[in-house]
Amino acid sequence: MEAMQQWVESLERRARFRLGSGRVADYIPALAEQDADRFGIAICTNQGEIYHAGEAQVPFSIQSIAKVLLLTLALRVQGDALWTRVGRNPSGMPFNSLTQLEAEGGKPRNPFINAGAIAVTDRLVGAFATPSKHLRDVARRLSGNSAIHIDDAVQASEWKHRSRNAAMAYLMKAFGHLDNEVDEVLTAYFACCALSMSCVDLARAFNFLAAEGHALSAGERFIAPDLARRINSLLFTCGMYDAAGDFAYRAGLPAKSGVGGGIVAIVPGRFSVCAWSPALDERGNSVAAQYALELLADDLGRWSGIIPAGLTSGGKMTPIM
Amino acid sequence: MEAMQQWVESLERRARFRLGSGRVADYIPALAEQDADRFGIAICTNQGEIYHAGEAQVPFSIQSIAKVLLLTLALRVQGDALWTRVGRNPSGMPFNSLTQLEAEGGKPRNPFINAGAIAVTDRLVGAFATPSKHLRDVARRLSGNSAIHIDDAVQASEWKHRSRNAAMAYLMKAFGHLDNEVDEVLTAYFACCALSMSCVDLARAFNFLAAEGHALSAGERFIAPDLARRINSLLFTCGMYDAAGDFAYRAGLPAKSGVGGGIVAIVPGRFSVCAWSPALDERGNSVAAQYALELLADDLGRWSGIIPAGLTSGGKMTPIM
Amino acid sequence: MEAMQQWVESLERRARFRLGSGRVADYIPALAEQDADRFGIAICTNQGEIYHAGEAQVPFSIQSIAKVLLLTLALRVQGDALWTRVGRNPSGMPFNSLTQLEAEGGKPRNPFINAGAIAVTDRLVGAFATPSKHLRDVARRLSGNSAIHIDDAVQASEWKHRSRNAAMAYLMKAFGHLDNEVDEVLTAYFACCALSMSCVDLARAFNFLAAEGHALSAGERFIAPDLARRINSLLFTCGMYDAAGDFAYRAGLPAKSGVGGGIVAIVPGRFSVCAWSPALDERGNSVAAQYALELLADDLGRWSGIIPAGLTSGGKMTPIM
Amino acid sequence: MEAMQQWVESLERRARFRLGSGRVADYIPALAEQDADRFGIAICTNQGEIYHAGEAQVPFSIQSIAKVLLLTLALRVQGDALWTRVGRNPSGMPFNSLTQLEAEGGKPRNPFINAGAIAVTDRLVGAFATPSKHLRDVARRLSGNSAIHIDDAVQASEWKHRSRNAAMAYLMKAFGHLDNEVDEVLTAYFACCALSMSCVDLARAFNFLAAEGHALSAGERFIAPDLARRINSLLFTCGMYDAAGDFAYRAGLPAKSGVGGGIVAIVPGRFSVCAWSPALDERGNSVAAQYALELLADDLGRWSGIIPAGLTSGGKMTPIM
Repeated sequence: MEAMQQWVESLERRARFRLGSGRVADYIPALAEQDADRFGIAICTNQGEIYHAGEAQVPFSIQSIAKVLLLTLALRVQGDALWTRVGRNPSGMPFNSLTQLEAEGGKPRNPFINAGAIAVTDRLVGAFATPSKHLRDVARRLSGNSAIHIDDAVQASEWKHRSRNAAMAYLMKAFGHLDNEVDEVLTAYFACCALSMSCVDLARAFNFLAAEGHALSAGERFIAPDLARRINSLLFTCGMYDAAGDFAYRAGLPAKSGVGGGIVAIVPGRFSVCAWSPALDERGNSVAAQYALELLADDLGRWSGIIPAGLTSGGKMTPIM
Repeated sequence: MEAMQQWVESLERRARFRLGSGRVADYIPALAEQDADRFGIAICTNQGEIYHAGEAQVPFSIQSIAKVLLLTLALRVQGDALWTRVGRNPSGMPFNSLTQLEAEGGKPRNPFINAGAIAVTDRLVGAFATPSKHLRDVARRLSGNSAIHIDDAVQASEWKHRSRNAAMAYLMKAFGHLDNEVDEVLTAYFACCALSMSCVDLARAFNFLAAEGHALSAGERFIAPDLARRINSLLFTCGMYDAAGDFAYRAGLPAKSGVGGGIVAIVPGRFSVCAWSPALDERGNSVAAQYALELLADDLGRWSGIIPAGLTSGGKMTPIM
Repeated sequence: MEAMQQWVESLERRARFRLGSGRVADYIPALAEQDADRFGIAICTNQGEIYHAGEAQVPFSIQSIAKVLLLTLALRVQGDALWTRVGRNPSGMPFNSLTQLEAEGGKPRNPFINAGAIAVTDRLVGAFATPSKHLRDVARRLSGNSAIHIDDAVQASEWKHRSRNAAMAYLMKAFGHLDNEVDEVLTAYFACCALSMSCVDLARAFNFLAAEGHALSAGERFIAPDLARRINSLLFTCGMYDAAGDFAYRAGLPAKSGVGGGIVAIVPGRFSVCAWSPALDERGNSVAAQYALELLADDLGRWSGIIPAGLTSGGKMTPIM
Repeated sequence: MEAMQQWVESLERRARFRLGSGRVADYIPALAEQDADRFGIAICTNQGEIYHAGEAQVPFSIQSIAKVLLLTLALRVQGDALWTRVGRNPSGMPFNSLTQLEAEGGKPRNPFINAGAIAVTDRLVGAFATPSKHLRDVARRLSGNSAIHIDDAVQASEWKHRSRNAAMAYLMKAFGHLDNEVDEVLTAYFACCALSMSCVDLARAFNFLAAEGHALSAGERFIAPDLARRINSLLFTCGMYDAAGDFAYRAGLPAKSGVGGGIVAIVPGRFSVCAWSPALDERGNSVAAQYALELLADDLGRWSGIIPAGLTSGGKMTPIM
């Protein structure tokens, strides 16, 4: 698959032109120390092949990307009952807004804004003794990397600067939408966000969303095909903070970003991809990682010849969406 | 293609079970007279074949579905300059809200909320002598039906009950975001929404979005492939009023609804579909038409055997998204 | 009453130190031409004596000060039925906001924000053949100046730049809270705002609010004493746009400002006062006129010796509030 | 002063007709146990005479009335520097709203909404070792009743149900507008709200606002005359939650209510009054206590004969506002 490797390298080369703009997240000191010029990208095909370029094996803080795993676990545990606590529509507001949460009686719009992920975590706190360890173990199994761990310094820093997340959690609690104590839920939530994983780890871990729910690394059907399709739809409409529509317009892929600079994206039926670069735009999405995924989508749509036949549907590109 | 016809008929049969719930739009008298129990569905494949069931050849008021045509024409005329006047993100608010429009300085969130469509119409008023006739002619050409017309009674009724749309237009005007006179823009906008088309007409007219921009009926490339992909992404994130996320979760298809009861949806690479039934849910989307499209998406994902091989990618279903 | 005249002159002298800051209203050209450095002040005692200093006899555009006359006339015509269409609470929002109006179903918070005054005007359009002429005649009678007129150029300019007011009016119409046609109501409203009056005219015209409803110039009881008290309360809580609380804290007087630079204030039981200077602060209140009224309130509270005994209650100052 | 006592008794008699409507606050169990039909009223003249009727000597939870004492103490300690942390304008929103607090960067609109009182308490936490004991001691001194205490059960109940107040405090903390730890500030705030005082206690304690800052019971000038006037203005515009404008229109008195059912009102230059009855309207103000104060204001305005000459200015009523 030399062509595939060359493609990934060309994505890296072109995306690096965007290094130099954006700002590293500074809301917690543990993230602010990152070097803005790092870049990595990894693809994991549905056949289990890995192609990567740049610093694709350097672990970074996955931050909000953890929300997808939290949601997936909660749906496995609770099924559709989860949707009584969190909605499925784009918020149209910044990811940490309280205004909408108050107006809508403490039910967060979707599981990918902070309030929504906290509400999801609350369900897992009820279901697992130590939800963050459970989530870490799932991440290890899905990525086939038993070295994945929770970064204590990042977790401690999140806790110390928890005021806004605490405000959201207490507001949900005030509406009776949080079963457990705020401090316990936040502790679990911050631990999950503090998971440290590389592009290769994340591409592998999220391949089940490209493969109709089948987790190749773990050798198991992780979730049902229609659930994989639904989670992809949620990522498409709500995965990129309040820039979801813009990103959908430009790249047209289900994706989830984190303020650590990582973005995971899914090409259903073909492969999962993770790009990473710490400098963020004003909406909290990595500048260079976004650009890499836009290039990738353009290439998929236009120059299907560059991509090995096995990745396409019978040699002719099917439009991704 | 007997199997295909049987499938469409089975969709109709199953969707009819939802007749009886919902309410016909009553904000203008001309729409309120519709019989709530009507139902039709039509599919137009990328090969130009039509399959339909129920009252698929009865014309109805396309209403907000016109917004997709308005957007497409404006993008053809203005290109990306259009995006200085309207955004591309889900609004997270009802389709006729003024609050967000005021908070964001008179720039509507996207072209599928009313304010956005009015802003788009303003651009066409500048570009065409009679934009509504131009749009009607485009609709005729794309659907191959020269009998398509603007319903004068509906148009007059929209004008008479224009207060909320007028409020939005004047607010944009106050921010300097409308070049033409409010009355002129609203006149053109209402005329476009008052187009009368059937399920078959609409499935044909919108097939270019399934066919990478190629308009089979018109025998022309109507828009570039990447633009078709981008419009589909916008439909996916913003096409179903503030239920876009829910519909994406359940059906996972780009779609646009109108308060006349019609919904157009796109299965990229394969076919366009239009379902119609006048009774709406509280968010303004047709109850039975939505359900028909959910059934369709489920069938596509699960029982690919029912769908002729030519419609799928080499016999095996590619997940739609 | 030499002491009183000296006091008014000292207020003028001290207030002039604030000239030079603020900006003349520029939202309509007819107002933008005003010289920022003009200043006038006039007091009308409950005994009918006039004391003035500076350009107190120069007519200016009364603008929002007209809202108090509109309200008074509507209460005379409709009584408490008026309060079904407009509230009596501070808005907490800018005077021309649509957000709150939408959230509260088209019922404006109070009669002194634009939407509220338009709603009040709508009631007068139903009650009088030409409400603006009726209001002009009332202003003439209350001030004893038959030369008072509506400035056509200002009225025309308001109409031309009516977009935001039109947006509010159409939004109320959409909620069924406006009985008459938007254009007719706005025409009457703009005419009233375009009344041209001097500080002396306004101090005389509004003396009825200081005199328990008795209009000295007109020689009649204009409104009942408790209604005068209630209107004063409304002015206290809502009269200074969204700076009402600040002004109440600093000056503690019922007052109404207009973007023409005028502010009318009431010292119940004693006198009415009007100060005028065209340059406004960012909230739309005249900088120098506000300051003059703060000085006046301070003097009233602290150095009662300067004010003739007849103006106080038995020689000893009663705190104004 | 027999006439005065008769007047107070007539106020009680008439106000009791409103018993039976409204609901006792139930957000904390400790308050919900109150009997809805209790009623008391007490007047404290600027000469130090007390007139009371009904259950005027029964202690109740002062709740938000404590905010006036908190503000007064903070202004004594900090002076105008306090206004960098809290505004002086009506909020136009419910007293425990987060939306406005978020929109305005964590600076509460005024000291009488919860967020504002918490911000004020934060300043006192920095200034006093145990602010709640200091405030209790001030309340004892001002009312001349050394038995006044903090109700432990109420305080504990407030803490247990602190979620919404915690949300507000954490949101201010997130904006850098709270210097001390959230838990510490809330503990002090709840202790102050849990003060238990009777109508007689409160009428005495707040007489300094009627007497230009002079505290008769304590035999000291508690605050400067102009500060008393300014605090009265704040009470007038912001003291009755989001019903401030309505209450001002009906009663025209500076006043502060608490969800324990008490309302303190000020007649500047004459007397302070406290009415109490536990059943609240939907805005959180006591139904019967409000009504008693409206009757009182009407009587003051209309039938001045009933009130002893010493309470008025030279026998003739001066309009209150």
